[in-house]
Amino acid sequence: MALVGVRHATRTRLRAASTAALEWASPDNRRKHASRKWGRFDENLIPLWVADGDALAPAPVREAVAEASKAGIYGYVDPSASLVEAVCAGMGRSWGRPVSTSWVRWHPGLIPALYHCARLAGPKGCVVVPTPVYPPFLNAAEDASQCIELDLGQRGGALDESLLRETLDKAVATANGEDVVLLWCNPHNPTGRVWRRNEMEAVARECASRNVILASDEVWSGLILDEVPFTPAGSLDTDVRLISITSASKTYNVAGLDVAFAVVEDDGLRRRYFRAGRDQAEPSHAGLEALAAILDAEGGGPCVLTPPRGACEAWRRAMVDHLRANRDAAVSFLERECGDLVKVAAPAESTYLLWLDARKLGASPGLFLSQRGVYLTDGAAFGARGFVRLNFCCSRAVLDEGLERIKDACAEARSNL
Amino acid sequence: MALVGVRHATRTRLRAASTAALEWASPDNRRKHASRKWGRFDENLIPLWVADGDALAPAPVREAVAEASKAGIYGYVDPSASLVEAVCAGMGRSWGRPVSTSWVRWHPGLIPALYHCARLAGPKGCVVVPTPVYPPFLNAAEDASQCIELDLGQRGGALDESLLRETLDKAVATANGEDVVLLWCNPHNPTGRVWRRNEMEAVARECASRNVILASDEVWSGLILDEVPFTPAGSLDTDVRLISITSASKTYNVAGLDVAFAVVEDDGLRRRYFRAGRDQAEPSHAGLEALAAILDAEGGGPCVLTPPRGACEAWRRAMVDHLRANRDAAVSFLERECGDLVKVAAPAESTYLLWLDARKLGASPGLFLSQRGVYLTDGAAFGARGFVRLNFCCSRAVLDEGLERIKDACAEARSNL
Repeated sequence: MALVGVRHATRTRLRAASTAALEWASPDNRRKHASRKWGRFDENLIPLWVADGDALAPAPVREAVAEASKAGIYGYVDPSASLVEAVCAGMGRSWGRPVSTSWVRWHPGLIPALYHCARLAGPKGCVVVPTPVYPPFLNAAEDASQCIELDLGQRGGALDESLLRETLDKAVATANGEDVVLLWCNPHNPTGRVWRRNEMEAVARECASRNVILASDEVWSGLILDEVPFTPAGSLDTDVRLISITSASKTYNVAGLDVAFAVVEDDGLRRRYFRAGRDQAEPSHAGLEALAAILDAEGGGPCVLTPPRGACEAWRRAMVDHLRANRDAAVSFLERECGDLVKVAAPAESTYLLWLDARKLGASPGLFLSQRGVYLTDGAAFGARGFVRLNFCCSRAVLDEGLERIKDACAEARSNL
Repeated sequence: MALVGVRHATRTRLRAASTAALEWASPDNRRKHASRKWGRFDENLIPLWVADGDALAPAPVREAVAEASKAGIYGYVDPSASLVEAVCAGMGRSWGRPVSTSWVRWHPGLIPALYHCARLAGPKGCVVVPTPVYPPFLNAAEDASQCIELDLGQRGGALDESLLRETLDKAVATANGEDVVLLWCNPHNPTGRVWRRNEMEAVARECASRNVILASDEVWSGLILDEVPFTPAGSLDTDVRLISITSASKTYNVAGLDVAFAVVEDDGLRRRYFRAGRDQAEPSHAGLEALAAILDAEGGGPCVLTPPRGACEAWRRAMVDHLRANRDAAVSFLERECGDLVKVAAPAESTYLLWLDARKLGASPGLFLSQRGVYLTDGAAFGARGFVRLNFCCSRAVLDEGLERIKDACAEARSNL
């Protein structure tokens, strides 16, 4: 891919970036280790796209994975009883009530789990997908069932309850007696919305009253940047048929280790959910070891809300501080330098994703920017043409370089207006 | 689970087993590393079930995986260009013609790949499954489509071409204009049949003449124990719509590393196949590193037929020798000690699986034997009630202990007749 009018990042500058607690992989090292984020495109591009952070995983995770890998035993694995208990203990603390080990279904990732959920509706049922949303939601709904979008707006604002009711009613009518599944994302990707307790209650209530299955993807719950409490769907006082899915993948930067899990309390729903899972790959040994190290180190889990401790928790807090600073820097920079060409659409109170309105750059702003040296995820696959998603889980040096390129691209666009 | 009348294996005896080239993981070590094979059931059971070997992976694989794991970079990965080229070079040598890098689709395992293939038929089409067969074939067919069985017999013998034609005709009629997929397994699991060239030609010809899609699972091609040449479907002179799927998982004992791939030459079929793949987990970084080490070390690949070299190839040859000796020992022992209660059904000219006729032990011989200290896979899920599959990829000490328990179980059954 040709680069037009961009300054090339100096490798030294990127490589030197680090903080006391967090260590950043160098671009060369990431490419050496087959990184999709850094390796898929021209190496002069600054990659601020796929939701994969640039930090090395926490030290206890690295040690556990390296130790397990050295042993040379790479056969089929089952999560150990102690790991399942640790997961349930963490979920239980987060939910404020006991979580049985029999409710857990392991997955090799969040995407297979989302497909599982969507398939519960079946081809004649209906899946409701709140948009904008990260692409696997729409893919799973379209591949498995009939799909109806719930328009959240682009601003990461409060839930429109009357629109929720109207959309669910429409889905129930479309399903015509078959199942309806609402795929929910809390915190929401890409807007970063941490759904408030009253909003989560409304979602559960409206689903329950229509017998709609609620699938709550809570993979971002460990990365909340502002003072907004996270409300797991499992903590609600409700009789909604609920599937909670999560993973350590985003919080601890281990998305390639292929481990996620679902928790399903309802017996009948769980049997259907489990039965639909014969198509999947195995969770990986390294991923299970990583999860055990995280739970062991912090005494909790990716969703735990009890007072945390340990090395992984210190790492997570350092990461949250870093992400907050990166977000604030990106927001200030874009507001100052990019005017209305690339506007911050939503406040990113969680995640490491900034949702940007770039409609003035044309229908494919992702492509426009990539041709000018910075790769963001285009909004089209999120159901939001003209928007882009910026991943700020990187060193400040990489972020700054990426922002400069966005600024230059805006200057070029402005001069052509 | 209670054990009835069995001698317990001494741990020391099991732990000491090793050969010059192969290293056997101790049961304790396998359990420590979350092994499903060793950990799922009572620890006094000898586990000769799931198709997962007890040997440590070859040294170059262990070094590559350990080195990659140490780096602490566990994000999303793409196979490197050099890895894709090495895979295609190996497949090309095996097929005797060039294989384009654009034909390759990566999977996190063989099972997701089988589901991909079966879904091409769709719910109104038909999938033909040769039985007995390892359970994911039947699962994929039943979950995705209408399923018709092609009875191979239990003896791992020659293909009945007239039954093949009859079954394919029935499938085409059932599909009524929709697609038909034949899921094929070469070499065959569980009988170990290495399909001869004339049989593979017949399969391809009969599929091609009915426009049936042929999906050839060739994951066992690296473990052929007798002097029988392996014929990859891709090496045939045919215009059948073909999907070849394979993995290093069985040959090099890395099934938990979550990497497999398909090669699809036909453009239209490949587009459909690729499009159906959005539901999957990521191939793992460790698995890609392992595959690169295998290809680099032997200059070939799991399917390569060219003269091999290097450390992984020496390991594979030692493994084949060990498996042949284990197979021969098991066959002699069973014929000598078990009479007609547990009979060798098929000759296992490949794989590390011995297909046994245990119908005289009742309808659930797997359960009967497991209650007597040795766990084999029951044939019911293979479409063959009364049969069991014995996995002999273990140290000779473990195998001997398992065989003794089978003998004792037979003696008990005989005394109750």
